[in-house]
Amino acid sequence: MSLNVASFSGGSLLLAWQLKDKHVLIVGGGDVASGRIESVLVADARITLISPSAGLHPLTKKFIAQSSRITHHDRVFAGPADLDSVDMVLTAIDDVAKSREICALCRERRIPVNVADIPPSCDFYFGSQIRSGPLQIMISTNGQGPKLANIIMRKIEEALPEHAGEAVEKVGQLRSKLRERAPGVGGELGKRRMRWMVDVCNAWDIDDLATLDEEMMLRLLDDGWEKNKVPKPVELGSGKKKHASGSHLPSASSLQGSLLPTALGFLTGVAATTALVWAHVAYVRR
Amino acid sequence: MSLNVASFSGGSLLLAWQLKDKHVLIVGGGDVASGRIESVLVADARITLISPSAGLHPLTKKFIAQSSRITHHDRVFAGPADLDSVDMVLTAIDDVAKSREICALCRERRIPVNVADIPPSCDFYFGSQIRSGPLQIMISTNGQGPKLANIIMRKIEEALPEHAGEAVEKVGQLRSKLRERAPGVGGELGKRRMRWMVDVCNAWDIDDLATLDEEMMLRLLDDGWEKNKVPKPVELGSGKKKHASGSHLPSASSLQGSLLPTALGFLTGVAATTALVWAHVAYVRR
Repeated sequence: MSLNVASFSGGSLLLAWQLKDKHVLIVGGGDVASGRIESVLVADARITLISPSAGLHPLTKKFIAQSSRITHHDRVFAGPADLDSVDMVLTAIDDVAKSREICALCRERRIPVNVADIPPSCDFYFGSQIRSGPLQIMISTNGQGPKLANIIMRKIEEALPEHAGEAVEKVGQLRSKLRERAPGVGGELGKRRMRWMVDVCNAWDIDDLATLDEEMMLRLLDDGWEKNKVPKPVELGSGKKKHASGSHLPSASSLQGSLLPTALGFLTGVAATTALVWAHVAYVRR
Repeated sequence: MSLNVASFSGGSLLLAWQLKDKHVLIVGGGDVASGRIESVLVADARITLISPSAGLHPLTKKFIAQSSRITHHDRVFAGPADLDSVDMVLTAIDDVAKSREICALCRERRIPVNVADIPPSCDFYFGSQIRSGPLQIMISTNGQGPKLANIIMRKIEEALPEHAGEAVEKVGQLRSKLRERAPGVGGELGKRRMRWMVDVCNAWDIDDLATLDEEMMLRLLDDGWEKNKVPKPVELGSGKKKHASGSHLPSASSLQGSLLPTALGFLTGVAATTALVWAHVAYVRR
């Protein structure tokens, strides 16, 4: 295989950061902060939100009212003590000097930090995102074209099978059931389990996988796993989830129903309030 | 807008981590490590690779030979001193006890760490990735279905405009030229610049944007930006990059040429060597 290693440059390291039961400090409560809150809630973190109530975006207020995982302090950032036991910091305030001060405090403590609007103060950037249940997709243009990232995101949304998120969820459930039935880590059994799951995913298309219910999973394990084969969807009575048109590619509108909205607007909102430097950190919204 | 905040759960925080000029320690040199090396090189980091030469994967050897950014130590991990001045640690070795020891040392020092095969020892996971120049896309199923992530990745590849990566690159160049011509951060000018770039991205389709060369960019700025309008591609003589079929969706094979290969094979390789627990950390390869 020929490799052009010199071309390996100009990108970021795309990661799925784990925040379950971690503690994230968000400083600011406006439009941008509300997007951050959503992303962090999705990742199962606890949030401390520091922002004067007067400046809270309606969506931020909604999140505070509806989530028991957010603790809101009606004040500005007070100093180093606000960083005690914090695992990650996201700031989205207009005060550049204060933002830089928070970043410096985080860096001393090696707390990962993202400062909206100030790329050099960011250990990481956000990208355009699609989320559908446990399925998450991020598009990054590495600051070259946030608008293009959004256009590409919409093309991806259109191309995604309508029930991709549900399919991922159902496959996850099937894997859990399989592990209960044939427990143990690694070894020959582990390999056989993985091979069988791969075979199922190859034999069934995504919208078929999305139809799996408890009964079908049981039959798939009884008639499939136990007999070392993969029954076809029709053999299990799959009422395949199809788009009305029968087309492989759902329209953007038909997709809206099955993709969880990422709650907010898009670049238009960002564009109205921030400058080009935002390119790096634009949390793209729908 | 109705929001089901309770459903905001079960995901990760997808990030574009910045590693330019940072120092990443990779422990291990096998199949999995070679994938890590590639991802980290793409993000412009310096790498210290600790692994006995005897266990190096051919691709790892190639990376060491071809990249001046890799320093290889022909030995096993020696202890805490190996973590001095390190910004991130990725391990991919078979020794579970050693892996856990490295993880504990990283946690004490608050160094972000990913330990292949041991999800609880990971601050972050990797996902299926597509890369084309500055365009990067990550698909995460949050451990529910690594094979499905790959199937979805291929559907996205097929749906991406053939020259999406080039378009992102060209748009980045156009933005730089625009900033040179109309410098300054924020304010009315910043907003006008952003609006005009958004208008260009909306008016030109992706394969047209990919045709932008120096001369066309100059004319776009002279006849467009200066006159507050957006000339159509044909007015600038765009020799639009089209797929032979004229179809919107290139075939997977036609796409191969324009997408940078992420260098390696895919899940099959992973499946052969690792267990189901790998789901969380599968670096999916083509």
